[in-house]
Amino acid sequence: MVVTQVRDGAAARRPDDLIVEEPLTIQLDGVTVATTMRTPGNDFELAVGYCHSEGLLAGAPVEQVRYCGLGSAAATEFNVVSVSSGGRAPTPSPRLTVTSSSCGWCGSDQLDELVARLAPRLAYDPVDTDLYARLPALVAPHQPLFEATGAVHASAAFAADGHVLATREDVGRHNAVDKVVGALALAGQLPAAGLGLFVSGRASVEMVQKAWAAGFGTLVAVSAPTALAVQAARRANLVLAGFVRDGALNVYAPERS
Amino acid sequence: MVVTQVRDGAAARRPDDLIVEEPLTIQLDGVTVATTMRTPGNDFELAVGYCHSEGLLAGAPVEQVRYCGLGSAAATEFNVVSVSSGGRAPTPSPRLTVTSSSCGWCGSDQLDELVARLAPRLAYDPVDTDLYARLPALVAPHQPLFEATGAVHASAAFAADGHVLATREDVGRHNAVDKVVGALALAGQLPAAGLGLFVSGRASVEMVQKAWAAGFGTLVAVSAPTALAVQAARRANLVLAGFVRDGALNVYAPERS
Repeated sequence: MVVTQVRDGAAARRPDDLIVEEPLTIQLDGVTVATTMRTPGNDFELAVGYCHSEGLLAGAPVEQVRYCGLGSAAATEFNVVSVSSGGRAPTPSPRLTVTSSSCGWCGSDQLDELVARLAPRLAYDPVDTDLYARLPALVAPHQPLFEATGAVHASAAFAADGHVLATREDVGRHNAVDKVVGALALAGQLPAAGLGLFVSGRASVEMVQKAWAAGFGTLVAVSAPTALAVQAARRANLVLAGFVRDGALNVYAPERS
Repeated sequence: MVVTQVRDGAAARRPDDLIVEEPLTIQLDGVTVATTMRTPGNDFELAVGYCHSEGLLAGAPVEQVRYCGLGSAAATEFNVVSVSSGGRAPTPSPRLTVTSSSCGWCGSDQLDELVARLAPRLAYDPVDTDLYARLPALVAPHQPLFEATGAVHASAAFAADGHVLATREDVGRHNAVDKVVGALALAGQLPAAGLGLFVSGRASVEMVQKAWAAGFGTLVAVSAPTALAVQAARRANLVLAGFVRDGALNVYAPERS
């Protein structure tokens, strides 16, 4: 795409690479569970990872993943992915549209729900701040879209020896994590015991939830965590490090490291 | 919260300010339309802005906005906001949970839907790259949460003379924009004719949609837009500038400026 670049007050027209986003609708056993704006690619991983991270599979195996269409060439054919558990997952409920007379829930309710569903990890994995500080440099070679556009998040799974197993990029930071989780799920590598999850942005409570649900022992974020994310990591016994920049970083969980 | 800071290989325990996130459920005329993780504060603006940006009000006036509880002191009382149009808004439909046999939609369908609902602006507002380049510095004094935590997005409305009308911060970049839109809506200042919208992050198609729906003439993003965001801005006749850094920037719409 050709855009106008302004530098030192002077304008010039130049080509520019922009990141692509397209809507993806995710279905589980025929029921639409989400529509997300995502960077096309690794769509099966995204769909499976989303269902896993949100607890929709509840331990049921994935029998089949497919795009909506069957042989047509319509562009929209690739914007719906159907995950099938053969009916073994619980029927997805229309959570977002319930009319309720209660006063909702708060962050601590949410943590209680996560603890009940996921159970705390038995113990923290070892903390290795030297490794965490090197992660941005270790993952960078696997971020071609960021290199081209500067507008895309990345997530990666890493081993204790610094080996980077899977890196995925997406316009949405949640999607990048779901793609990594889905990649491991489809490879039969979940739970991700002994592995850590790296994210290029911030660590909100949803990122902790996704790491926890997938069985990662560590979450390392380039930017800051939220307060609720730290509380969640401490409830989960999940190592949480953040603000990894220029060799410095903070460890938020365990509380004393 | 006390965290472990690692600097030059040495660890020290220090207090650290973290951004707060809590779930907010938004209801329109008694029906739950969204639950979002947000930074508490300006919740009425967020709820009204969300309903406006998503087209849920469809021009209906807001009669009342209130928290769920009536006089109780429960913490969750403040995590549900009810917007009432007195029944004049269309009944919200459970969009996310529809079982469908179609193959979904794609980005260009989405643009067609926006054009049908919002109508293109009649003409572009004047392009003022000098002003856009100054916006990060003009808005920075109004970002106390970012100053304290480094982990929060900001959005602001600005006038052609550089006056900053409303700045709102939130852990979610969409929420920050909805809060600005809601602030203008509750002040009777919509549509935002002659005003621009500044966002501290990237410009996805949803940000263009929100700016367009509120009647802004310009959207300026500190980071990159997506390809679909640029297409949407060009369809809308909405000025779109991005990558505003160190006095340089790109203009993505109009196509030739």
